Amino acid sequence: MELPKKDFTHLDQHTGNPTMVDVGTKAATKRIATAVCEVVLGRDIMQRLLEEKDIVTKKGPVFQTAIIAGTMGAKKTAELIPLCHPLALEKIKIEIDPISETSIQIRCTASLTGKTGVEMEAMTGASVAALTIYDMCKGFSHDILIRELRLVEKKGGKSDFRRD
Amino acid sequence: MELPKKDFTHLDQHTGNPTMVDVGTKAATKRIATAVCEVVLGRDIMQRLLEEKDIVTKKGPVFQTAIIAGTMGAKKTAELIPLCHPLALEKIKIEIDPISETSIQIRCTASLTGKTGVEMEAMTGASVAALTIYDMCKGFSHDILIRELRLVEKKGGKSDFRRD
Amino acid sequence: MELPKKDFTHLDQHTGNPTMVDVGTKAATKRIATAVCEVVLGRDIMQRLLEEKDIVTKKGPVFQTAIIAGTMGAKKTAELIPLCHPLALEKIKIEIDPISETSIQIRCTASLTGKTGVEMEAMTGASVAALTIYDMCKGFSHDILIRELRLVEKKGGKSDFRRD
Amino acid sequence: MELPKKDFTHLDQHTGNPTMVDVGTKAATKRIATAVCEVVLGRDIMQRLLEEKDIVTKKGPVFQTAIIAGTMGAKKTAELIPLCHPLALEKIKIEIDPISETSIQIRCTASLTGKTGVEMEAMTGASVAALTIYDMCKGFSHDILIRELRLVEKKGGKSDFRRD
Amino acid sequence: MELPKKDFTHLDQHTGNPTMVDVGTKAATKRIATAVCEVVLGRDIMQRLLEEKDIVTKKGPVFQTAIIAGTMGAKKTAELIPLCHPLALEKIKIEIDPISETSIQIRCTASLTGKTGVEMEAMTGASVAALTIYDMCKGFSHDILIRELRLVEKKGGKSDFRRD
Amino acid sequence: MELPKKDFTHLDQHTGNPTMVDVGTKAATKRIATAVCEVVLGRDIMQRLLEEKDIVTKKGPVFQTAIIAGTMGAKKTAELIPLCHPLALEKIKIEIDPISETSIQIRCTASLTGKTGVEMEAMTGASVAALTIYDMCKGFSHDILIRELRLVEKKGGKSDFRRD
Repeated sequence: MELPKKDFTHLDQHTGNPTMVDVGTKAATKRIATAVCEVVLGRDIMQRLLEEKDIVTKKGPVFQTAIIAGTMGAKKTAELIPLCHPLALEKIKIEIDPISETSIQIRCTASLTGKTGVEMEAMTGASVAALTIYDMCKGFSHDILIRELRLVEKKGGKSDFRRD
Repeated sequence: MELPKKDFTHLDQHTGNPTMVDVGTKAATKRIATAVCEVVLGRDIMQRLLEEKDIVTKKGPVFQTAIIAGTMGAKKTAELIPLCHPLALEKIKIEIDPISETSIQIRCTASLTGKTGVEMEAMTGASVAALTIYDMCKGFSHDILIRELRLVEKKGGKSDFRRD
Repeated sequence: MELPKKDFTHLDQHTGNPTMVDVGTKAATKRIATAVCEVVLGRDIMQRLLEEKDIVTKKGPVFQTAIIAGTMGAKKTAELIPLCHPLALEKIKIEIDPISETSIQIRCTASLTGKTGVEMEAMTGASVAALTIYDMCKGFSHDILIRELRLVEKKGGKSDFRRD
Repeated sequence: MELPKKDFTHLDQHTGNPTMVDVGTKAATKRIATAVCEVVLGRDIMQRLLEEKDIVTKKGPVFQTAIIAGTMGAKKTAELIPLCHPLALEKIKIEIDPISETSIQIRCTASLTGKTGVEMEAMTGASVAALTIYDMCKGFSHDILIRELRLVEKKGGKSDFRRD
Repeated sequence: MELPKKDFTHLDQHTGNPTMVDVGTKAATKRIATAVCEVVLGRDIMQRLLEEKDIVTKKGPVFQTAIIAGTMGAKKTAELIPLCHPLALEKIKIEIDPISETSIQIRCTASLTGKTGVEMEAMTGASVAALTIYDMCKGFSHDILIRELRLVEKKGGKSDFRRD
Repeated sequence: MELPKKDFTHLDQHTGNPTMVDVGTKAATKRIATAVCEVVLGRDIMQRLLEEKDIVTKKGPVFQTAIIAGTMGAKKTAELIPLCHPLALEKIKIEIDPISETSIQIRCTASLTGKTGVEMEAMTGASVAALTIYDMCKGFSHDILIRELRLVEKKGGKSDFRRD
């Protein structure tokens, strides 16, 4: 299969080594991105989250800890992902909802007005929130799965994206 | 459904608020944990990774950047996950392998001799490596999925775990 | 006034420059320290915290955010305080209680088995929790005071301390 | 007591969970904030600081370490306080002055041109400087108090504030 | 020798204490800076780097690890250097080239559009890359030297600089 | 030239990818390492440091800022150098001395009782102190050179090292 010519944006065209994209000449526009993932906890843990009010009111200690951790994690994206630019995020929002009798969904939206997008911030925030849920529930079971982490929407860059 | 009595280890028994587990009285033993996840990249990106030698030799720039990021990310676990203890990790290993024509698998193993396990370090290292792969490939497509992040084995604590 | 001879532990005896204490020859013992401070919020904010369940159940979103922040802040002590040693904390606990119609008290206890004490970790954890409360309530008033941050007890080092 | 309707800015209006304020639509203006606190050291430690030139010249090693720590601490505000935005601070200034025979005052001023204020940065810088003074003097006494941490002025946002 | 009057920019004019420069009134311009250093590894290590493809293709694991570390290190400049401003870097590039039978050269270029220069970011990125090379080669010899770290060019501030 | 068989300790023997050394089976022994470097400042800056008391008393604001930065930088080694282990340093000491009419020397000693050496911590501490001196003096000249960064001694591991 011959691929249409298009380079890895994060590899130097001459040496092939990893390198940051130069965003210096891009326009500062409003950027927004949303990522989601699912955490399969199983019936037993879901029931316990119900008792702790995490599920009914969405305000229990497990969900709130994950929301704080995801928010702080999104702010650490440029420290974690080697070729990400440090960004002055204007908003991060983490939402956690039960989506079945065994699973919850985590949704992270990040936004700013800047020269580069916030897709990685949304992905990282969702990941860290999910890992925190895992950490707080692993005393009950290690059979917990974090799955389907993906971008669902981004707007404001060269091209918008929306997952169907 | 009435659940057998067992508390969230990370919630204070009296107030119900989030709190660290006290590991002060645990024995320092050899602990090891392995986590894996998959990154579904699609045929086009897989082909390009082949050209960059990432897949054939497993030594290309994309995989190596992810290995470095995952290793450094595992060291940041206690900074990211609110109730994790700071740990003196003795070893972190990240391996990346193609597992189909569209997907790769990331495997992170962490170990130390200490009072608490390294499960979250293995999970975090795999996550950050996966997010880095995503970051470096997202110029080709946003239809990339990080899935099935899970613990596959842990040894050395109160109870061992091995996923079948 | 002539002072009995005793040097600043954090100044080099020869040059007078700041320097870390060498804890290499100290014994690893169980260390524990507790610090407290008060946050004077005023009647209006206290009433609103009551409505958010922070005060009645001690489990509302403001207190829980502060507990998470204080716990994570205590883990960052050696990053913040220049001459503190990096420590493998085994336990951090933050408690928040109303102590009058206008004030809350924050209490942070830290512990580990190690060569140096955790007094600064307890002080830092209480500070960061208090600053977080301030941040979340400052939309109502800037007339908030953080006061009386102090060590109340430490055990396990050269000399124990207990504030009357 | 019925309170006039006004929400916690850092709680989501629908779920009540902690969340960052969206500053995306705010105007970038010059923002400045000053916070102060006092450290009650007692006569003995004050006398020793005098001998180390900290008090006479304000340039001794204890004060300078605290100034550096407070400056670096202010830069870490968004890492410490969960719902603070990462900010490109343009200036941080820490000043330390004796205010009585037993006490010093720490004053931290932060400024930038941006969409949100720097009140938390000023508060955090003063706190970390105070904690550093405590750390360097605790070899003499644990009876040290950090008190009256408060905002004294802020300008440039929706409403200015000046403490009388 | 009497020096023409000119103050340390990072010392307060009144107290003489360390302080950040206020960049609030500076214009945001395009800033770029390049720093270089050399790492003297000796013939034996150079030969081994040749075998690992680091030298022939410039794409081996040692150089790539150093490139990632230097890039991430440059992003940490304001955390490391007390009086540096936090900056939203738009581009960091690390290049590593053999310059003799015993030595390599590391070159780090940083850029952004902002109110202050990126000279320290370029210097820090080159340093961290060099230290990483050292770390990965020290198993062969401790007789490795990092030398001649210097700015080679900066543009976009009050005055440009170019080393002959 | 055929080299005696010896592998890069930081490359996986099977894949050749970067990886941490496993220090799990090493003995915890007392480890100490000292690194030095020189900063060539030129006569003009040296004269100004003399006036600020940095050189005569070694206690001026420039040297003290560098000492604090180097100490804090050494604590960040495992965050900066990808394959370094997080270590519980027991002592870091930075010394700065004039060594000619144009140059100063920075010396950093690190120590702990642990399973791996502190060579990188000593190298990193000296680097960050040197970069801080550079930062504080660059207002006078950009013709400053950081040179001859090297290990001078290490003790306590598999083999001791002492530079003649």
